[in-house]
Formats: sequence, C-alpha cells, structure tokens
Amino acid sequence: MTEFDLIRTYFGDLGSRRTDVLLGVGDDGAVVQPPAGQTLVLATDCLVDAVHFPKDAPVDAIGEKALAVNLSDLAAMGAQPAWFQLVLTLPKADQQWLRQFATGLGRVARYHQMRLVGGDTARGPLNVTVQVAGLAPPGAALRRCGARPGDAIVVSGTLGDAALGLDLWRGRADRDDPDVAFLLNRLHRPTPRVSLGQALRGRATAAVDISDGLAADLGHILSASGLGATVDVDRLPLSEPGLRFGGRERQWGGALAGGDDYELCFTMPPSRLHELDAIASRLGVSLTRIGYIQPQPGLRLVRGDRTPVTLAACGYSHFPEHR
Amino acid sequence: MTEFDLIRTYFGDLGSRRTDVLLGVGDDGAVVQPPAGQTLVLATDCLVDAVHFPKDAPVDAIGEKALAVNLSDLAAMGAQPAWFQLVLTLPKADQQWLRQFATGLGRVARYHQMRLVGGDTARGPLNVTVQVAGLAPPGAALRRCGARPGDAIVVSGTLGDAALGLDLWRGRADRDDPDVAFLLNRLHRPTPRVSLGQALRGRATAAVDISDGLAADLGHILSASGLGATVDVDRLPLSEPGLRFGGRERQWGGALAGGDDYELCFTMPPSRLHELDAIASRLGVSLTRIGYIQPQPGLRLVRGDRTPVTLAACGYSHFPEHR
Repeated sequence: MTEFDLIRTYFGDLGSRRTDVLLGVGDDGAVVQPPAGQTLVLATDCLVDAVHFPKDAPVDAIGEKALAVNLSDLAAMGAQPAWFQLVLTLPKADQQWLRQFATGLGRVARYHQMRLVGGDTARGPLNVTVQVAGLAPPGAALRRCGARPGDAIVVSGTLGDAALGLDLWRGRADRDDPDVAFLLNRLHRPTPRVSLGQALRGRATAAVDISDGLAADLGHILSASGLGATVDVDRLPLSEPGLRFGGRERQWGGALAGGDDYELCFTMPPSRLHELDAIASRLGVSLTRIGYIQPQPGLRLVRGDRTPVTLAACGYSHFPEHR
Repeated sequence: MTEFDLIRTYFGDLGSRRTDVLLGVGDDGAVVQPPAGQTLVLATDCLVDAVHFPKDAPVDAIGEKALAVNLSDLAAMGAQPAWFQLVLTLPKADQQWLRQFATGLGRVARYHQMRLVGGDTARGPLNVTVQVAGLAPPGAALRRCGARPGDAIVVSGTLGDAALGLDLWRGRADRDDPDVAFLLNRLHRPTPRVSLGQALRGRATAAVDISDGLAADLGHILSASGLGATVDVDRLPLSEPGLRFGGRERQWGGALAGGDDYELCFTMPPSRLHELDAIASRLGVSLTRIGYIQPQPGLRLVRGDRTPVTLAACGYSHFPEHR
C-alpha cells in the first residue's frame, strides 16, 4: 500500500463535511473560506510515542487524544473549531493500526464538526501532529494575559485523574472496576472543554488549558499577567475515583503537577461569578473556584485555614522537564 | 533550559512582523486576521531525520528546508505565504543546534515575509513539522485536476539536481568545486517557486510541486484530471553541473523519479504559451515545455524522435515507497 492509497483509504473523508471547505485532502494544500469578520485561531500539538501516551495505549484512543489535546487549546482560546490537518510518521503502514487510529480521530472530529483537510505521512518513529484552525469574533479570543488582582480563579471538571490513570494503566489495575475505567478514560480520552471556552468569551479575563498540571499552567496566566495568586488546595476539585485510588494528598500533587487533565483554568471578576452556576448546569461541567489573583507575583498554596503548604507537601517532588 | 525558555529564546520573534498577527507565539493558540474576501490555503509537511535529510546535513539548512518544502506546496497552489507554525521534537535541547536551525528557518521566513505564530516542542526522535497558511483570491488557487487534452506541460528550473546532490554529499565530493556546491545547495536549500505560483493564477490549468520526481508528481495531475500525457525526455531541463557529474541518462532518472527538486510542474493551454517568456524573464526562472496532455490515461516517455523509452532505460529502477 503506497502513501497515497493509505491517505485515500483512511483519511480521505474524515470528520464532518463542511461547506466552507472548498478543496480538501488530496492536493498540495487545502482551500477553506473563513467567514467574513472572524479572526482565525491556530494551534498545534504533537503526541510522541511513549512520551505523550504509553506504548500499549489503545490505538483509537491515540487518534482521539491527538485531536482532543489540540481542541483543548482552541477551548482555552474561546475559539470555535473548524478545520484540521494531520501529520503522521509511523514505522510501517499497519492497516489495522491505521483503521483504529482513524476511527478514534474521526469520532472526535465529527463530535466537534471539524473536517480533516490535509496533512502528510512519512515513515519514521511514531509521531502524531495535529494542527487545528478555529474561529472567534474580533477581540473575543481568550488570552493568558488579562487577569486582574481580585479576580477569582476557576477550574473545570476534576484534576489529577489522568496522572493517577497512568499509574493504574502501568500497574495493570482491574479495568472492569468502573472507577478504574473512569480514571483510564480520563488519561486516554480527554474531554476538551470546547463549549465552555466559547461560553467564557467576554466573561473570563484570562484562560489556559491544564495540560502540564495546574501549577505550571496557572503559572502561565500569572507570568503573562504580571501577577500572583493564592490557591486553596482544599478546594481543588478531585474525583471520587481519584480519592479512592489516590487519596487526598496524592491527588493534590497530581492536580498541581501531574498533567494531561485538559481542563480549563480561567480568571473572572467577582462581579461575574454569579453567572458560573448557569454555565455549569447548561454545559454539564463542574466549575470550581479555587483561589484568587493578587498583585504580588508567585503562586501561594494554602489550606482552607490559610496554613501555607508546599508542592512537596502535596505529594509531588518534581516537575517533568518535558511533557 | 525548559521548553518555555527554549521557545522564547529561539522562536519568540521569528520571521517578518505582520500587522495581521493579532497574537503570536506564547499563548495556547495564535490569532490572525485573514483579509476580507480571500480564501485560506493550508498545507503541512514534515522532515524526518535521515529520511528527508542526511544525518549530517547542515543544521541551518534543515531549518531552511523545513519551511521551503511547505512554501513549495503554497507555490503549487498559487497562494501568497502568510503565517506558519513549527512542531519540533528533538532528543535534547542542544542550544547550538537550535540557534543554527532557527537561523536557517528565519532566513527563509523573512525572505517570504512570513511570521512564525506558534508551535509545539517535545522530547523525541528528531522530527520537524511545519504548517503554513497562505492566501488566494476566491477561485484562484491552482489545483491538480484542471488539465485538459492539448495543454502543454511545463516545468520550472532544472530537475534531478537534488538526487545527484545527495549522492555527492554521501560520497564526500569536493565541496569547493562550484558545480558540487551548486548541486549540494539544490539538495539542502531548495528554492520554492512562490512568485511563479502566484503568476500562474488564471493561467495554468493545473499545477503540482515536484517533490517525489516528475513521473510521480505529474502523475498526480494526470490522475486528478483523468487524463494522460507524453513527455519528451530530451526536453527535460538538466543543469550543467548535473550533466557534468551525472550524465544525461542518469539525470533523466533523477528528474523523473529522484525527488526533492521542489520545482513546479504545470499545464497550460497552447494559446497562453506566449506569456511564458515574459514570466520567466521577470521572475528569473527558466520555464521549459516538456510535453503535452492527452485523453488516453498513462504517462508515455519518448525521445525527440518519438521513440518510446522506459523509466528503467532512463537509469532508474525503482520508486521509493515513502519519501
């Protein structure tokens, strides 16, 4: 099977059909028509074998995750997903692998009404790179730099599940246990908060997605905004399965520095916090206020009683240098 | 040096500044403003270590080539380059390597007035993926599918140089010889025909860039257009250095199946051929008519005297399965 057959078979018609795609897969480039008066939001993320997913990860989940982590970036920008490209290098054209990969990728693409419009394939170590393009009204895209002192810090969903899921996957935990299955799904099939990101346009003052752990990613908001924050670790949203298998302190560590959660962290003026409940219930996602922005730089962790705590005391001893 | 320091240092301000970049490197995504009434052309190509460039290739040339091969796709579409993203996986953050790579990448970006707006870095086997976005008026993008019987087939520049350059590089030929230097430059630092592509809007009926050899790439035009062609190998444009080091028959093979030339191949009605000289002289690129499109599918190779020849007779025995 040549490169061209392979592309045609598995990637020629992937995702939702869109009338704004004037020329899709199969030429030197794709041609799309951005709607008048919208800005274009571009993002790209790669998954490297054994770095961003375990060697034995379900193949359809690799396809899901490759697009989901990019959608998470669009979510953090408040953008509406539109088109994507795929670059796939793989050691050999294993048809079963490709079929499963395309199945997972297509599932996420259709759910978010995205269309695969082009890409590249080559022989090489397994590497999956996706590039996404989304749309936002002028001035509406969320940035990391707009937080203000006094803003509340809010996170979606629960944190620390993916890091724990990785340990359970490696430890070959019982996958028939529904709590184990939940945590493994959080690792392998992250849920990008695309609708939430769009709902935060004009409401959040800054936003980021949590891919490297809350401490690092909230840190991006703080350094971009030139500010600091206090976070109450007792308020970190932890899942029941996470508490059962990880325990409270370990999950704090996973939430702060574990990575791969793909939830959103955003800041919002106190005057707007009353809008959160309606958004959370409309979108079916929990939204938890965990702290507040302060003028003094740095991230300060406290317990509810205001006792300072350290990252190490939260059960975590190092930051991975690369994710 | 963390991933974030590395990005800031080498990639934070790369390429030409553009007023249509509303938010560049350093957030979850970039925000750009496409001009009203233009379509967007998207393309992506990756370079895999030791597959798309030799292990010991000059590092700044890897940076040049990573963007140039993508620009060649935009050229084949007749698009005007605008923005690009870079995904770089590398085994370690070698600062000298990164500096040289960014120097080459930046040189090509500035020449084509492109801006690097985002990307991703991760630890892994060396892999360089670039995604480009360009602009074209509605309906103006060149495609592979518009060739018509009787159209002339034209190629830019000279063919077969890069394949010969690779042999000379591997054979450690004398790089002080200007002919060797020419051929190595053709391999390491391809010249994307961006201005030519734009000049062909409304003139060429179909276009493709020659990355896998003329036979394969012209083959894409033929299959997309549902047609065939006859090409006169005596007319294939060969360089003097190519003839000196490779000889005529070997260079035919390199032209037809050698790859990496990044010239354009396009089709044009005979009634427009008189425009070619002016375009060639304005852009400083040679344009050579090598054959014509026919209704009967398939690619037929002849010598000027109409004697049929085969690819094997042109000195080439196989097609690489993946480039």
